[in-house]
Amino acid sequence: MLKLFYALGSCSLASHIALEEAGADYELVAISTKAGDQRTPEYLAINPKGRVPALVTDRGVLTETPAILAYVAQSYPAAGLAPLDDPFAFAEAQAFNSYLCATVHVAHAHKHRGYRWADDPAALAEMTRKVPETEAACFQLIEDEMLKGPWVLGETYSICDGYLFTLADWLEGDGIDCRRFPKVYEHRERVRARPAVRKVLADEAP
Amino acid sequence: MLKLFYALGSCSLASHIALEEAGADYELVAISTKAGDQRTPEYLAINPKGRVPALVTDRGVLTETPAILAYVAQSYPAAGLAPLDDPFAFAEAQAFNSYLCATVHVAHAHKHRGYRWADDPAALAEMTRKVPETEAACFQLIEDEMLKGPWVLGETYSICDGYLFTLADWLEGDGIDCRRFPKVYEHRERVRARPAVRKVLADEAP
Repeated sequence: MLKLFYALGSCSLASHIALEEAGADYELVAISTKAGDQRTPEYLAINPKGRVPALVTDRGVLTETPAILAYVAQSYPAAGLAPLDDPFAFAEAQAFNSYLCATVHVAHAHKHRGYRWADDPAALAEMTRKVPETEAACFQLIEDEMLKGPWVLGETYSICDGYLFTLADWLEGDGIDCRRFPKVYEHRERVRARPAVRKVLADEAP
Repeated sequence: MLKLFYALGSCSLASHIALEEAGADYELVAISTKAGDQRTPEYLAINPKGRVPALVTDRGVLTETPAILAYVAQSYPAAGLAPLDDPFAFAEAQAFNSYLCATVHVAHAHKHRGYRWADDPAALAEMTRKVPETEAACFQLIEDEMLKGPWVLGETYSICDGYLFTLADWLEGDGIDCRRFPKVYEHRERVRARPAVRKVLADEAP
């Protein structure tokens, strides 16, 4: 059985949502990044990167949200979570997820995880200060250019939707009112109302 | 025909290599990020993100290196550039590419592109200072845990190899001797010797 290592409030929520939407049989293991669980020898043996998510399969461990999301879509094709038979449409989905992973999540990470890229406390404070500006610019681009509606890819719900929901739900915590981006806001609440997402949020509730 | 917008010295090299290895029919368009070509209205109409690479297809424009690489592999299956019929193996390839995109490239970007995440010159200098440490830690993880050898995924050359080559070739410019990571170094020179890669490097030569 699949086993997902996740942390509350982290991007692992996107993989959790994908597994639930796929109807997968999976087990959850919570770790606390605040307590530093991700840096224990036990966890590093599972994921040497010391991050979540990590998806344990009978073939080995998968990491990186975009890779896990595509894996879930391909492993449960009947769930229709990605346009699997159309390389261009699949690439559009992957480009969206890659932007969330490498640009939007990275923008957010400069708030509390600036130590990855600087040591000086003044530099860390400066990074934190700029996050609302940087992150809002990302969501403006999503609003204006990327979110087709009603779902990310248009008429069909996909792996991209749970991932966008995950990151959009960080906006208020980063000092940005999601309603500045009406399409993103309506999309976020549309995703939140899905039965699978409601179950996932309940299962992750502390 | 496919058209690749690229910039010399950028990560677009990975997409260029994949197209050449695939035997694709494509056209190259060089832009100069130093001259700011990526922020002209003409280029922003192609890629509103203002980045390279952008791959123009007859269906529309694709961005984000991991998405373009998987698209090339899926569009030219005879070239065998990814394990397309095995979702787990494909996910391993994608996880590798996602790590390069969202962690390794991001570490490198703090040298010259720190303005994405901070304005204060002292903070930018602090980010630049830490790059050799951060980037070396990434390559140590690749050396110890990720690069199977002789190619990234093992016995078969894939889209991951040209991407790793692209980023590993930035090491010396970032003050890191690639030979600190013997497997990465040997892999880099193995990729450089491939006929397709030699042609790509010659075609991009200024």
